[in-house]
Amino acid sequence: MVHVTLISYTPHPERTIAAAARVSTSSISATELIEKLTPEAVDSLLTQLLTSGHLSPFEHASFTFAIEGISRVTSHQLVRHRMASYTQQSQRYVSLKEVNYITPATISAKTEWGGKYHDMVHAAHRLYREMLNAGIPAEDARYVLPQATETRLVMTMNARELIHVCELRLCLRAQWEIVELFEKVKAEVERVAPRLGVELKPKCYRLGYCDEAQSCGIFPTAKEVVGERR
Amino acid sequence: MVHVTLISYTPHPERTIAAAARVSTSSISATELIEKLTPEAVDSLLTQLLTSGHLSPFEHASFTFAIEGISRVTSHQLVRHRMASYTQQSQRYVSLKEVNYITPATISAKTEWGGKYHDMVHAAHRLYREMLNAGIPAEDARYVLPQATETRLVMTMNARELIHVCELRLCLRAQWEIVELFEKVKAEVERVAPRLGVELKPKCYRLGYCDEAQSCGIFPTAKEVVGERR
Amino acid sequence: MVHVTLISYTPHPERTIAAAARVSTSSISATELIEKLTPEAVDSLLTQLLTSGHLSPFEHASFTFAIEGISRVTSHQLVRHRMASYTQQSQRYVSLKEVNYITPATISAKTEWGGKYHDMVHAAHRLYREMLNAGIPAEDARYVLPQATETRLVMTMNARELIHVCELRLCLRAQWEIVELFEKVKAEVERVAPRLGVELKPKCYRLGYCDEAQSCGIFPTAKEVVGERR
Amino acid sequence: MVHVTLISYTPHPERTIAAAARVSTSSISATELIEKLTPEAVDSLLTQLLTSGHLSPFEHASFTFAIEGISRVTSHQLVRHRMASYTQQSQRYVSLKEVNYITPATISAKTEWGGKYHDMVHAAHRLYREMLNAGIPAEDARYVLPQATETRLVMTMNARELIHVCELRLCLRAQWEIVELFEKVKAEVERVAPRLGVELKPKCYRLGYCDEAQSCGIFPTAKEVVGERR
Repeated sequence: MVHVTLISYTPHPERTIAAAARVSTSSISATELIEKLTPEAVDSLLTQLLTSGHLSPFEHASFTFAIEGISRVTSHQLVRHRMASYTQQSQRYVSLKEVNYITPATISAKTEWGGKYHDMVHAAHRLYREMLNAGIPAEDARYVLPQATETRLVMTMNARELIHVCELRLCLRAQWEIVELFEKVKAEVERVAPRLGVELKPKCYRLGYCDEAQSCGIFPTAKEVVGERR
Repeated sequence: MVHVTLISYTPHPERTIAAAARVSTSSISATELIEKLTPEAVDSLLTQLLTSGHLSPFEHASFTFAIEGISRVTSHQLVRHRMASYTQQSQRYVSLKEVNYITPATISAKTEWGGKYHDMVHAAHRLYREMLNAGIPAEDARYVLPQATETRLVMTMNARELIHVCELRLCLRAQWEIVELFEKVKAEVERVAPRLGVELKPKCYRLGYCDEAQSCGIFPTAKEVVGERR
Repeated sequence: MVHVTLISYTPHPERTIAAAARVSTSSISATELIEKLTPEAVDSLLTQLLTSGHLSPFEHASFTFAIEGISRVTSHQLVRHRMASYTQQSQRYVSLKEVNYITPATISAKTEWGGKYHDMVHAAHRLYREMLNAGIPAEDARYVLPQATETRLVMTMNARELIHVCELRLCLRAQWEIVELFEKVKAEVERVAPRLGVELKPKCYRLGYCDEAQSCGIFPTAKEVVGERR
Repeated sequence: MVHVTLISYTPHPERTIAAAARVSTSSISATELIEKLTPEAVDSLLTQLLTSGHLSPFEHASFTFAIEGISRVTSHQLVRHRMASYTQQSQRYVSLKEVNYITPATISAKTEWGGKYHDMVHAAHRLYREMLNAGIPAEDARYVLPQATETRLVMTMNARELIHVCELRLCLRAQWEIVELFEKVKAEVERVAPRLGVELKPKCYRLGYCDEAQSCGIFPTAKEVVGERR
């Protein structure tokens, strides 16, 4: 099961973002701004930037997470977000001793498929271990491992990209495992940067409507809200 | 087995790169340059840019490939190259009818492991199909599929990034399947842009030495060539 | 005055985008798709992608422009768009013989400021030439040149980024010179890819409302349209 | 004159990089690694990564600088480095009260050109102020300002990009003002991350030779070192 730990981040992320943003429109220096901005000024600046979509200053704060217990299904999706840095456990250089894998709820132990799924994953892992013992390189043996196999990685993402990725990945249409991952990412950010954390939310909360073909019901569709104007 | 087709590319890629490069250092317009540059001038300009490492003009030519028959092992590695665009067949939206998968040479039919590997992949695929038939969504059933499962994608990469990626992925230390992929990418580029194609080569050919911990033997190591200077 | 020429682009850009998009959700190969998609299918696919914000396939088509006659004011803004490739005429390596510069409408010859502006720019350019003649390097002499000085560059941008940049730069709040630049970029794209060209438009046309603090009047504000929902 | 202040950075940058790198090749968790790595292990890991060119883990540490007192000549060059985040003082929204500008050494007060340069810059600035007073918008009046005019910005760059940019911009062929800028960036990084700071150096120090057309003399040319091998 996915586990997310914030291992490092830009200190005072919200203040850093606000100070950078103010440099653009004032003649005060960034070093002075970072000291003098009151918490209220920081908060009000962030709100302004967010409602008008001026998000580039959010790039100045970044967050580094240790992510463990996600399937290779999900890590493959995750790394498609290119505005971030990833270092992932290599299946070429690390041979996996234990059978750690993800089970979707629809195939869980409570279902009739749970047992068969469990057996298949274990059988594949057994063959993987046998091939390793026979001298087949880990980078080849791993071809037989199921996509359910767990992986771990370190991910660094700046606040602008976190906002963007959460718009897509906290949407109920996203795949359940990546939703879980970003709910935990959000929780970690909220702990140290509550104003920013609250902005990690699905796209519809920012748009005021759902722009997917079908709405999950939380927000009306684009058609219902802006009609033919769009 | 990996199959690569160049489906589209910037027309006259080498001439486009050379014309762009000349804009930087001349007062002639790009439209004029593109018409007037002789093939010899194009060639000599590319050589100059390449030997001095001034590679940014190579970004102006891009290449779009249909890539088929690569494993999810390799597509996961591939998409880590972030300066490129990928559209990959979705295992959420497409349910796989046939059992298409990659077999590493070390596990091929000629080895004692070939049969066991074949059986395991087919068993996993059978369970996948059964779960689909029972109404489990494809996005969940695929967790049981092996990483050997074939995927397809469209990749667009500009010439600068092609040069960079081939430096890493045509190195004999790279994983065999991704080496095969980029050998075919190189062959496709060579067909339409021979001067550029020849530049798609491992890093050592550009450096003049191998900077990995151990050399494959084609080039001496950094230590042997530049010694303590580095 | 800004002059934009499309010097190269991915052939059949709209068909390439549509074929790539279909690879994601079908089991037909990209090479087959590129041949078989009817113009109607291409059109309908692009519309679907655009209304639901699934824009990544638009990265597979890119456009290379020769841009001439823009001020250094505007080239400095332009290159802030990082998802693009630029090769710009160097003021280190090219010494400017002629006095080419941009005059804002508010300072044009028709105004009382026109003459003073004209004289100042010419005086600065004269000093620049004198310093060059005295052996001061062009890279230093240019410090005296006004920001109005014209520059030229080659820019390659993919269709996804063109859509994004036009959302910002065709907005009436953008600076007039960059608006002019992207109106010409749009006109060039429209010539060869009309379906795509029509999508190069300010953000409000996509959102259905204006999300800036004040609307220019074409669209109502976010508040008026989605109210407290947002 | 350029002034650089490190206003924020990933705490324990070198340890963060080393821990991330180790995740790739070990089965220990990142959270554990970050606690247990000894300073010697961190140092030795960084050296290994650097000599073999495996630089991606360096992306996990980023640095935010307040940069003041650079000319628009140099900020225009600086923002061409796209793997970084910039928030720059706007000449549209901020009207410049004082005449702050950069003077190249070749045009300094000690030379015969110093006076003329000074007078021209002041004359341009005076006209700028007069136009502002007459109601011409700052975004238009600034066209007359010389490129020497000072600007300020906040820049965030990760350690991998810092290494890359310094390879180019600490080279003696780079423009003097941007060399000064990155010498100060290097000094700021060295203060808090000495092992990383020492790696901020021209490309030749990494290659073991100079790959430019002409060497400044510190290192022999590529031809002299690797000869026909390259």
